Amino acid sequence: MIDMNGDGGESFGAYELGNDEQLMRSITSINIACGFHAGDPQVMKRTVELAAATDTAIGAHPGFQDLAGFGRRMMAVSPEEIYALVLYQTGALQAFCRANGTHVRHLKPHGALYHHAAADEYAAEAVVRAAEAAGVHAIFAPPGSQLEKAAMAQGLTAVREAFADRRYEPDGTLRPRTKQGALLESAEEAAVQAEDIALRRQVTASDGRIIKLEVETICVHGDSRHAVETAQAIRYRLEQAGVNVTAPEAVV
Amino acid sequence: MIDMNGDGGESFGAYELGNDEQLMRSITSINIACGFHAGDPQVMKRTVELAAATDTAIGAHPGFQDLAGFGRRMMAVSPEEIYALVLYQTGALQAFCRANGTHVRHLKPHGALYHHAAADEYAAEAVVRAAEAAGVHAIFAPPGSQLEKAAMAQGLTAVREAFADRRYEPDGTLRPRTKQGALLESAEEAAVQAEDIALRRQVTASDGRIIKLEVETICVHGDSRHAVETAQAIRYRLEQAGVNVTAPEAVV
Amino acid sequence: MIDMNGDGGESFGAYELGNDEQLMRSITSINIACGFHAGDPQVMKRTVELAAATDTAIGAHPGFQDLAGFGRRMMAVSPEEIYALVLYQTGALQAFCRANGTHVRHLKPHGALYHHAAADEYAAEAVVRAAEAAGVHAIFAPPGSQLEKAAMAQGLTAVREAFADRRYEPDGTLRPRTKQGALLESAEEAAVQAEDIALRRQVTASDGRIIKLEVETICVHGDSRHAVETAQAIRYRLEQAGVNVTAPEAVV
Amino acid sequence: MIDMNGDGGESFGAYELGNDEQLMRSITSINIACGFHAGDPQVMKRTVELAAATDTAIGAHPGFQDLAGFGRRMMAVSPEEIYALVLYQTGALQAFCRANGTHVRHLKPHGALYHHAAADEYAAEAVVRAAEAAGVHAIFAPPGSQLEKAAMAQGLTAVREAFADRRYEPDGTLRPRTKQGALLESAEEAAVQAEDIALRRQVTASDGRIIKLEVETICVHGDSRHAVETAQAIRYRLEQAGVNVTAPEAVV
Repeated sequence: MIDMNGDGGESFGAYELGNDEQLMRSITSINIACGFHAGDPQVMKRTVELAAATDTAIGAHPGFQDLAGFGRRMMAVSPEEIYALVLYQTGALQAFCRANGTHVRHLKPHGALYHHAAADEYAAEAVVRAAEAAGVHAIFAPPGSQLEKAAMAQGLTAVREAFADRRYEPDGTLRPRTKQGALLESAEEAAVQAEDIALRRQVTASDGRIIKLEVETICVHGDSRHAVETAQAIRYRLEQAGVNVTAPEAVV
Repeated sequence: MIDMNGDGGESFGAYELGNDEQLMRSITSINIACGFHAGDPQVMKRTVELAAATDTAIGAHPGFQDLAGFGRRMMAVSPEEIYALVLYQTGALQAFCRANGTHVRHLKPHGALYHHAAADEYAAEAVVRAAEAAGVHAIFAPPGSQLEKAAMAQGLTAVREAFADRRYEPDGTLRPRTKQGALLESAEEAAVQAEDIALRRQVTASDGRIIKLEVETICVHGDSRHAVETAQAIRYRLEQAGVNVTAPEAVV
Repeated sequence: MIDMNGDGGESFGAYELGNDEQLMRSITSINIACGFHAGDPQVMKRTVELAAATDTAIGAHPGFQDLAGFGRRMMAVSPEEIYALVLYQTGALQAFCRANGTHVRHLKPHGALYHHAAADEYAAEAVVRAAEAAGVHAIFAPPGSQLEKAAMAQGLTAVREAFADRRYEPDGTLRPRTKQGALLESAEEAAVQAEDIALRRQVTASDGRIIKLEVETICVHGDSRHAVETAQAIRYRLEQAGVNVTAPEAVV
Repeated sequence: MIDMNGDGGESFGAYELGNDEQLMRSITSINIACGFHAGDPQVMKRTVELAAATDTAIGAHPGFQDLAGFGRRMMAVSPEEIYALVLYQTGALQAFCRANGTHVRHLKPHGALYHHAAADEYAAEAVVRAAEAAGVHAIFAPPGSQLEKAAMAQGLTAVREAFADRRYEPDGTLRPRTKQGALLESAEEAAVQAEDIALRRQVTASDGRIIKLEVETICVHGDSRHAVETAQAIRYRLEQAGVNVTAPEAVV
């Protein structure tokens, strides 16, 4: 049993990004941008409606207030600032969910905030506290991260996440993007890795060794050119292998 | 029995505006900026905490996305856009309220959005629909406005509003700011008008005639230089006259 | 002899819009977004470099500060505000031009600001004054507009503009987008209208009558889906007809 | 002979910050915010006019695009991004200067960008290259910094800067704000330190030792509560001591 998550709602005004409608045919939970690094109120409304209609589990995807940098640039933001900006964004998304008779089921920080909260215990604690204040009880986090620890410490559910299209190092961390072979090159390779993760709780690391990887959700990147195709390939292969692909609440 | 409302939470980052702490000693309900025309997540957090601590009724004060113009410049925004931007902002504020064990008790559009929703039935309908979707059931509106009508038509409470420091025309509308005598000049004059409104449901219009004015709340402008002083003068005079100054839920 | 102009530099951060590189193979002058309604410093840098390399005449394309609305929503902005925001944006673009050994050769307001400056003499005067202060001496404007008048009154060159893909009314105004037949449907139709304008200084109006239309530049919309294709069709037809397609300085 | 510089033009829309008019009576050069971390086109226009009228030397004060954080939060911005954002902002200010018959005479990065460019050679090189491209030939920089080195390496003038109200460590660096005694407590103390710097090219460090400090300009912080008062005290004391207080071009 595994969840497949992807990013959505990343368009802004006249700017279109991603193909949420097609992506939601393959994934089971969607991380929706909340207007700081991407997304705007109308995009959020449309994306929530689409997720509700397709029964895709909705997650908040809050980021740094950096539209020009798409939330990917690290910013020196204090835990107090992180708490406030996560609560603000998640509350805004919660309102669109409530208007559609549903609610935010998980939270996954975006971009630089994700990496910061994974590594820094104070940032992690602030993210988790904000999620809980906004009525969200599941946090997507890398296995072994400060974010996972903070979620558990505060009594929330940590939904551990792996990446289908990223190569892992022998120690279980992601191979840095600056190194060769950081990205799996084809949809098929990603699908094979996803099956390994879902069925056998393992991946083949960069040195050829097989390592354990215990996770409850697999991330499919929503903004890459081939996101839809990769998501389809993964979903197809998982179902062929008899894996029950389903949203996080059922998983954990 | 009457409510006194004022605007708050209008600081932004390093920029301070208004004196929320002192203002909340006089007013009974506060309209909190939600980050589009003024305010930011940390300011909202502090303002909600202060309002909760002083038992001041919290209202959402959503505005156009125009920080440079403080939401005072009319923008050609469609009803669909208005619905989404009001729901977004109110949801964000609702999250800070819930984190403090309270909730948003009313909604008052800010600046150009207030004037637009007062005059345009489609804009009014969008504002009211968004308020309701965000779990807010009372709308502050000028008596006789489209906004009042829309609130009532959708089964919400319309809390009618008068201005203590603005002169009224014989037909019950506000004297335009471009005309002489649009503003009452002293805190004392504003207090006299407030007493007239609260006790006798009337004001002296620009031509000296006395006209009826039925409202449930009196607005004290939060961002003017003398806001605190005026609010104090009004509150003192109302209490001296035996008026029960209290938040909107008790009023209506 | 005629100029063909198109909009460019409208990408923003992670968001890509338009295909500037291909468009610049057909057009002779480009209106570059300056960061308020679209564009960012890096996009401006790249677009200016590309225009310089392809010898495309560079124009400033300043707009309202409304990224969420792509500068298409009318805002109640005073002439003083217009002067300042046009000067700011044009100065920023001028710096990228100077860094490439070139300069801004014309200015065309974008979206709602274009329409406002075409109709309002005070807005028009502010735009022209800002252009001149920024060292720009040619203004793109609809024939007969306040913007054309203001440019001439201040001693600047008014470069009159027609639209290849928009239908004209018998009185010489554009057929409103809300009416049927407002847009020419094919690249070929647009090319035919462009040839009529360039060679015969006339168009066929919505009622079938032929009307005079004296202009020095023809606009090809840069952000429509078929912009590149339409631009190519127009350029090809004009050259087949022996029209000298060249940038505005040579035209006027 | 020494220059006194201060920050100005930091208001934004309805938000007022600093007292530029009074500050310009004491300082000889002003660093004007350019709209990214503070300031807006109208504020820039007013500030440039005021500086031109009072013969205060105008400098560009570009910062990170972080209005909410007032440009004080470090952001992971590449040298390419820094080049573009500094050129954009400086070009915009240059336009307001040209409109007033003057020009930008120096550039001083703001806040986190100042610290980053002081420490990182690639960031420093990008700032200097952008300044030069915008027609600015003097860079304010801490003595011994990468920014000073980059300015000299590219043939620009490095104007070395000291702080009147900050304590120095024995090694000539600023005492970190996190340590006790980082700030001089009174306007009088700051004036004494300024005199030491201007007359004797030395300061008394945190351990009581006297160290050499060779600079051409002294910074008076514009946004602190007592900025005007401190600036007055310093100016008075320097003039009493017979120091020629004058703008950077004369200094270097």
